[in-house]
Amino acid sequence: MAPVKVYAPNMSTAAARVLLCLEEVGAEYEQVPINFATGEHKSPAHLARNPFGQVPALEDGDLMLFESRAIGRYVLRKFKSPGADLLHEDNLAESAMVNVWLEVEAQQYDKVMSLIFYQLIVIPVFYGGKTDEKVVAENLEKLCKVLDVYEARLSKSKYLAGDFLSFADISHIPLTHFFMSSPHASVFDARPHVKAWWESLASRPSYKKVTAAMSSK
Amino acid sequence: MAPVKVYAPNMSTAAARVLLCLEEVGAEYEQVPINFATGEHKSPAHLARNPFGQVPALEDGDLMLFESRAIGRYVLRKFKSPGADLLHEDNLAESAMVNVWLEVEAQQYDKVMSLIFYQLIVIPVFYGGKTDEKVVAENLEKLCKVLDVYEARLSKSKYLAGDFLSFADISHIPLTHFFMSSPHASVFDARPHVKAWWESLASRPSYKKVTAAMSSK
Repeated sequence: MAPVKVYAPNMSTAAARVLLCLEEVGAEYEQVPINFATGEHKSPAHLARNPFGQVPALEDGDLMLFESRAIGRYVLRKFKSPGADLLHEDNLAESAMVNVWLEVEAQQYDKVMSLIFYQLIVIPVFYGGKTDEKVVAENLEKLCKVLDVYEARLSKSKYLAGDFLSFADISHIPLTHFFMSSPHASVFDARPHVKAWWESLASRPSYKKVTAAMSSK
Repeated sequence: MAPVKVYAPNMSTAAARVLLCLEEVGAEYEQVPINFATGEHKSPAHLARNPFGQVPALEDGDLMLFESRAIGRYVLRKFKSPGADLLHEDNLAESAMVNVWLEVEAQQYDKVMSLIFYQLIVIPVFYGGKTDEKVVAENLEKLCKVLDVYEARLSKSKYLAGDFLSFADISHIPLTHFFMSSPHASVFDARPHVKAWWESLASRPSYKKVTAAMSSK
């Protein structure tokens, strides 16, 4: 079986979501870099992979997929094993909780965290611009409210969907990884269950491997 | 088996997404109104259902779920039948395409359409304010780009995920329903495959029943 191909630059947090899934299930894959500096993401070849011109895209034989959360589901379903079942689809109630917290990640956490990421990393590092501290402060306040909900949830179960690791947890890793090296990481320290949850995620081999690659260029 | 309970006001487009799923699979349900005018969505009783204080929430025995797309998946999995299989989870490639286009709905379509909805409906109808036509125009331009991708896709398959109706299609209905009664509906007319797709969705009994209830108060 040929390895699946992931089209994405190393820096992409959405691509990291997919790579984490591939690592968790132990799937073979090949990463094909996409050069944003030359506009390769808007080239006809890449638009054929993703008509919105975004990354990542995943190629598996005749199948071409895009949108990181959809690709992640596919990878986790295709390569599922007794030791790596991150969707719990065989259990109706557990899979429902995985889906609830995956949506919370996308609709509540990511919406706030991606704005913070944009200000703290994208503007200064990629555009040589200046972080708007007002935007950061406003979104930190929103983030704290989201984290209060997480703290309450994680005081009742070890992971977001229950006492088992799921895609809902993994999906939080890429943006949180960058956030935790910022001066604002203390908002996690102030919430002991959230902090323990993050430490448990950050100790996984998949985390170490994928985040090392993210920082490599 | 007791019917599931959906906590939501009639006007909620997110609730309509869930009600459409319940209608499509023919499940029994009871709708419990939540009064936003009195702040009921932020009451302790409702925060126990959804810690973010939003609607809808779904109660099924001991299980309490929130986030409309997660609830929709649960309903479609639990009440799936040979005549109503809107996730195609038994087919790895087809379910992957359902998930891709569900994410497109959430990440591309909804992001633009909800801003238009807010300007055209929420501000004038609920707050007695004035629509910002500049915001509408900017987002209409973005919507047209998204619809161009849809037009290309729907020229190759009858529905978004393939030649079968799926949750990806259904999930577009609530916001599109309101948009189609606006003066801007012509952007659909200009794209024949998108228009035919919408007409096919709008002719479904589930659409007629749920949208009639949405407009009832």
